[in-house]
Amino acid sequence: MNIPLENIQSFIGKEFATSPSPFMLWLKPIVVSAKHGKLCFQYTVRKEMTNPIGTLHGGVTAAIIDDIIGATMYSLGEPFFNTTINNVIDYYSAARENDILVAETTLIKNGAQFANAECIVWNHDKSKMIAKGHSTMFKIQAKK
Amino acid sequence: MNIPLENIQSFIGKEFATSPSPFMLWLKPIVVSAKHGKLCFQYTVRKEMTNPIGTLHGGVTAAIIDDIIGATMYSLGEPFFNTTINNVIDYYSAARENDILVAETTLIKNGAQFANAECIVWNHDKSKMIAKGHSTMFKIQAKK
Amino acid sequence: MNIPLENIQSFIGKEFATSPSPFMLWLKPIVVSAKHGKLCFQYTVRKEMTNPIGTLHGGVTAAIIDDIIGATMYSLGEPFFNTTINNVIDYYSAARENDILVAETTLIKNGAQFANAECIVWNHDKSKMIAKGHSTMFKIQAKK
Amino acid sequence: MNIPLENIQSFIGKEFATSPSPFMLWLKPIVVSAKHGKLCFQYTVRKEMTNPIGTLHGGVTAAIIDDIIGATMYSLGEPFFNTTINNVIDYYSAARENDILVAETTLIKNGAQFANAECIVWNHDKSKMIAKGHSTMFKIQAKK
Repeated sequence: MNIPLENIQSFIGKEFATSPSPFMLWLKPIVVSAKHGKLCFQYTVRKEMTNPIGTLHGGVTAAIIDDIIGATMYSLGEPFFNTTINNVIDYYSAARENDILVAETTLIKNGAQFANAECIVWNHDKSKMIAKGHSTMFKIQAKK
Repeated sequence: MNIPLENIQSFIGKEFATSPSPFMLWLKPIVVSAKHGKLCFQYTVRKEMTNPIGTLHGGVTAAIIDDIIGATMYSLGEPFFNTTINNVIDYYSAARENDILVAETTLIKNGAQFANAECIVWNHDKSKMIAKGHSTMFKIQAKK
Repeated sequence: MNIPLENIQSFIGKEFATSPSPFMLWLKPIVVSAKHGKLCFQYTVRKEMTNPIGTLHGGVTAAIIDDIIGATMYSLGEPFFNTTINNVIDYYSAARENDILVAETTLIKNGAQFANAECIVWNHDKSKMIAKGHSTMFKIQAKK
Repeated sequence: MNIPLENIQSFIGKEFATSPSPFMLWLKPIVVSAKHGKLCFQYTVRKEMTNPIGTLHGGVTAAIIDDIIGATMYSLGEPFFNTTINNVIDYYSAARENDILVAETTLIKNGAQFANAECIVWNHDKSKMIAKGHSTMFKIQAKK
């Protein structure tokens, strides 16, 4: 039984409002789907997430990608804490206040010491990519 | 006269509370110093900026780096809007709630079409690097 | 008719020995398959491609990825020259002298000004990833 | 006494022709200077290093950066083998056949488990940056 994954799955269609991550609560993700190594969350662009020209702030895009990749690693239910070594974000197009974003992750490689995962941030109907990012994570044995 | 730079300089020692960027206001930067192509801002890690283990969320680190690099480009006073093509963040060490962060930028290359800038996020006394990131930006002629 | 793609396809099963790229000739790719936006080339690790511990030099891995991504853009038959803005390589596992490598590209996004493509370098039977990289390219109108 | 560094220093002004790295021998670096964590090598762009438009192939640029960063880590004389986790290359301007390149490294952070170093590739008189890259390396205890 994978308790972390089941926990996320219990929020499908709802905001993941019991996340132990204060910043994730700020992002207010709605769980769309959750499978082993593949999460899909939905976000609404709030005014406080925008830049001076009224579009989604690139820093928030990066934060969404980092956050859902972290949740993807957590959802594997492994006895590790994953430290992010780096992440890389490519920006493709803009989103505006009140737009719905759909972020979807893919676990690329899950090795003994390192893991690599990526995330595409789409517009609401997944017809347009907003950004794509990936992270390298280092696994640290969780304290018992 | 470079109005954007003078605007930022007028906030030295204070929070940059008139930023036209809603997300920058959320980050609550205090302007430490501001020169051509080199800004230094200070931030306090608030609880809502942390992850499940109580340390600064990597997404917020990425957001700070993206934001202050954007401000650095704005401070050049050029008639361009800078679109971020990508950014890359390397994470070095953790910060905790209530820690002071010092972010400092360097303009690496400012070409006709593209610009590259980097940012180091330090702990309060700059004895330890928390993260380092850099962005590639594409210059778009600002509408008159 | 897409002449560049047909040119590459005419070498399926053979070394792409008429490449106009001197460095590509040094890499000695064998064309495995070639479709719109998706090339698969095979390489043999020669001694001069190795590092001090006898494994494939990371610089050669990076060069293979950069080269086949460039070929992928060329194969689109567009009237652009693609300048690489940056590339990012993640290294997963080692390869040794005489090993066969299989590199396969995917065109992620092909916009009006920028294109993004990625490449996975596999071992000979694609059971193990050696590395993964992606590039951002800027399109420059080809001179007539 | 740091034997690796002294070894590199003994080649100042000459090609580093005894490198144990076959691919480094192909790059034919001339050692310009060598200090703790900071190497400067010079290269000549040979025809086999170029792309279809006669300029330095981006893959060779990436290979130079990866190689001299590896040499920088070696020159520290630590009892570790450094595995490159990833590298990121930003391309700024072109170089042509017979051009002299000057590559210079900086050790950014040298931690207990990870190290980060960067490299700028300049034109012959360091008046123009060709490219800039950086790598994250993971330290593996060298076998005795």
